[in-house]
Amino acid sequence: MHFSSVIYVLSYLLIFLSAAMLLPVPFSLYYGESDYVAQLISAAITALAGIVGLYFSNFEGDVRPKEGFAVVTFGWIFLSLFGCLPFIIHGSIPSITDAYFETISGFTTTGATILTDIEALPRGLLLWRSLTHWLGGMGIIVLSLAILPFLGIGGMQMFKAEVPGPVADKLTPRVAGTAKILWGVYVLLTAAETALLMLGGMSFFDSLCHSFATLATGGYSTQNASIAAYNSTYIDFIIIFFMLLAGTNFAIHYRFLKGDWQAYRQNKEFVFYISTIGAATALIGLHTFFRSDMTLLKAFQDTLFQVLSIITTTGFATADYEQWSQSSQAVLLFLMFTGGCAGSTAGGIKIIRIYILIKFIFSEITRLLHPHAVVRVRIGSTIVNREVITNVLGFYALFMFTLVIGVVVMTLLGLDILSALGAVIATLGNIGPGLGSVGPTDNYAHIPELGKWFLSFLMLAGRLELFTVVILLTPGFWRK
Amino acid sequence: MHFSSVIYVLSYLLIFLSAAMLLPVPFSLYYGESDYVAQLISAAITALAGIVGLYFSNFEGDVRPKEGFAVVTFGWIFLSLFGCLPFIIHGSIPSITDAYFETISGFTTTGATILTDIEALPRGLLLWRSLTHWLGGMGIIVLSLAILPFLGIGGMQMFKAEVPGPVADKLTPRVAGTAKILWGVYVLLTAAETALLMLGGMSFFDSLCHSFATLATGGYSTQNASIAAYNSTYIDFIIIFFMLLAGTNFAIHYRFLKGDWQAYRQNKEFVFYISTIGAATALIGLHTFFRSDMTLLKAFQDTLFQVLSIITTTGFATADYEQWSQSSQAVLLFLMFTGGCAGSTAGGIKIIRIYILIKFIFSEITRLLHPHAVVRVRIGSTIVNREVITNVLGFYALFMFTLVIGVVVMTLLGLDILSALGAVIATLGNIGPGLGSVGPTDNYAHIPELGKWFLSFLMLAGRLELFTVVILLTPGFWRK
Repeated sequence: MHFSSVIYVLSYLLIFLSAAMLLPVPFSLYYGESDYVAQLISAAITALAGIVGLYFSNFEGDVRPKEGFAVVTFGWIFLSLFGCLPFIIHGSIPSITDAYFETISGFTTTGATILTDIEALPRGLLLWRSLTHWLGGMGIIVLSLAILPFLGIGGMQMFKAEVPGPVADKLTPRVAGTAKILWGVYVLLTAAETALLMLGGMSFFDSLCHSFATLATGGYSTQNASIAAYNSTYIDFIIIFFMLLAGTNFAIHYRFLKGDWQAYRQNKEFVFYISTIGAATALIGLHTFFRSDMTLLKAFQDTLFQVLSIITTTGFATADYEQWSQSSQAVLLFLMFTGGCAGSTAGGIKIIRIYILIKFIFSEITRLLHPHAVVRVRIGSTIVNREVITNVLGFYALFMFTLVIGVVVMTLLGLDILSALGAVIATLGNIGPGLGSVGPTDNYAHIPELGKWFLSFLMLAGRLELFTVVILLTPGFWRK
Repeated sequence: MHFSSVIYVLSYLLIFLSAAMLLPVPFSLYYGESDYVAQLISAAITALAGIVGLYFSNFEGDVRPKEGFAVVTFGWIFLSLFGCLPFIIHGSIPSITDAYFETISGFTTTGATILTDIEALPRGLLLWRSLTHWLGGMGIIVLSLAILPFLGIGGMQMFKAEVPGPVADKLTPRVAGTAKILWGVYVLLTAAETALLMLGGMSFFDSLCHSFATLATGGYSTQNASIAAYNSTYIDFIIIFFMLLAGTNFAIHYRFLKGDWQAYRQNKEFVFYISTIGAATALIGLHTFFRSDMTLLKAFQDTLFQVLSIITTTGFATADYEQWSQSSQAVLLFLMFTGGCAGSTAGGIKIIRIYILIKFIFSEITRLLHPHAVVRVRIGSTIVNREVITNVLGFYALFMFTLVIGVVVMTLLGLDILSALGAVIATLGNIGPGLGSVGPTDNYAHIPELGKWFLSFLMLAGRLELFTVVILLTPGFWRK
């Protein structure tokens, strides 16, 4: 392991982070609040740590898979470690455990909060909180489309060919090129959502924060009641639309923006994603409509919002789905597992993996019927190779094992089974709100300290497609 | 599809079934009860159906995979259809839905019951109920060790080499030879348990019924309170021991009985099975001990009994585990998924598949660290080939999908999520009692009609390793 290279890259990230910490300052000053001091001190400490790191390290050339895994995992851990400084220094989240939980929940675009009164925070810190989502989302887009496919994680290598940007053999220039293109799309969509929300009467500050949280499929709001606070059909539908986009592969957005009008329609994952959303919305919407005195429009508005909020793993709320029928909740629970498209900012197992799993099950049935035939799994006209299928199955198996271990751990810490399942899937899938005592109207404040650290680990593991993090726990990784 | 061959085999099975229906008659007469009439009428109807079937069909030679799948699935369906006649004719279970549920629950060795007062049934019918377990268990042993491996279901082909009996290329003589050997072991163990239970003061009738239910990992008892009714440490431990044996690959028992003293120790699946039982018992036992005023022995006795009852998917009860801590219940819930060893009468995913899954996840990690190395999955010194791993992963994926669909269906029928999960895993895993409203002190009487038919389907699908049944639902199966 080239530790020096790893430290070098991490130090650069810290310097970038310290610059980002300055963004809330003008807002803090504008609103006449004092939290800019905490923000400036944090930026100074972070910059200093970055400079010291750069001084003692140097880039030793080629990045091998090992360094890749280490940079990515420690990157998220260190950004969260320094990113929680503003909360601690300002004193609004005095506990290190809570501040770290809140920050890694931000950077992993989870959106699980320990805050019982969000509106008590000054604007600067609220913006910083939303900004952790947005920065985390930037990281994830590049990670999932430009880094993980080359590390061979969970079948993502099938996206190698789909990545936009310069074709290069070396990872570094390719990542740089791809990042610039995708970040352009990301910034553009964020700006568009901010403008459209402002048109609906939301303040610039709130619009910006919610756009950060939407595009990153994070879910932090500036309001205790989340999006329900605005009670606006227009705002609901704007956010529904941008959640849909945020849960879609950003490489397709890029292709579409470049003039390929067939980009969405031709992408099998996107079509399956839309179909799943449609089916779930129809099932839950009708159930909700017939069980209540809502209008059909309102029932579908609430349902569509919640279905998108969960399948894209955003976690915004306009309704308390724990009041919905048990079958509606069961469908939502299932959507917590699927997650959005690969190459988006959404978490979960990802639509493409579910799609491959289903296709694979059918291929197994065909194989049983025709033992001597060569049975292939296709997505559209592309043959999915055996290695990709195996990796996808491996990812799925590891996801389920982590879930089981997680539920046992959380029940040992005192949660009931349903809340434990809710907390584990909501953090592992980077959703935010779960079920039971961590439902959409609750928060994570009551979880025991150890539980918060454990859930922080699950957020990280889930965000980095499990293997990236789990690999660091094996002795084989650290062996020369 | 050679329908005629399928009908031929099914007709033979019915004639065999009608003979088995005569076994409860002497018991009924001995106890001076009148249910022998229903038993005789049922036997006559079943025999007649079998004879008519034989008359109109003939065996057309080679059994291809297609006929194999059809015989196995329709075999279980038809046996249950005729097997429920005694309950209906006698009138003790008047509803066809209930009678069919109770009988297929017997033949699939599930043990989920719709009876609210078991002791109200006459002895003859109680014996018949336990006998359906035992006959189902006979079927399963042969199916899992002699038929499924050759059909390539869910990775079971890795057992081809382990099957005792004559080595033959054709399926039929091999099945016959293997069946005789394994049934010998099965009968021997049943006789041993009956004798040992009688030594503990249980009546011959009760001992026989409970032995039938134990060896088949079924779980039907003659008592409303299940094994708790006897309140005997001796009886508890006898049943614990035989549940352990019933959840073990019967090919190993055979090897051991033939003088291979290392048979158990050398079998990796058995070692992993014992380790899982040990770990779960330690975790739950200590938790139960510290939470109650039980003695350490009693805490471990109750825990070990319940752990074995669930991991072997038997479903006997000596304690109401829904009163235990949430973490204990979470561990038990996990054991509902694992199930016992392959080649036993236990249901669930099976230990060997879980073992292969874990080994495979580790191999994926190694592959990520060494992208150019050839990474193999080994069990002991045997290399598990790629095809077996893929089949195991496919089985696991299908199991989980079926579970998700099952939970959504059961919540649509009005169950809460936890009860729905409990009912689905308890039937799909052939356990019997689940969680929530179908817990160990409850029964399935309150499930809506449609739900009972759906759960019957899950019992069948779970018992026949899913693919055997699901394949019949595909149009490809019925195409020429």
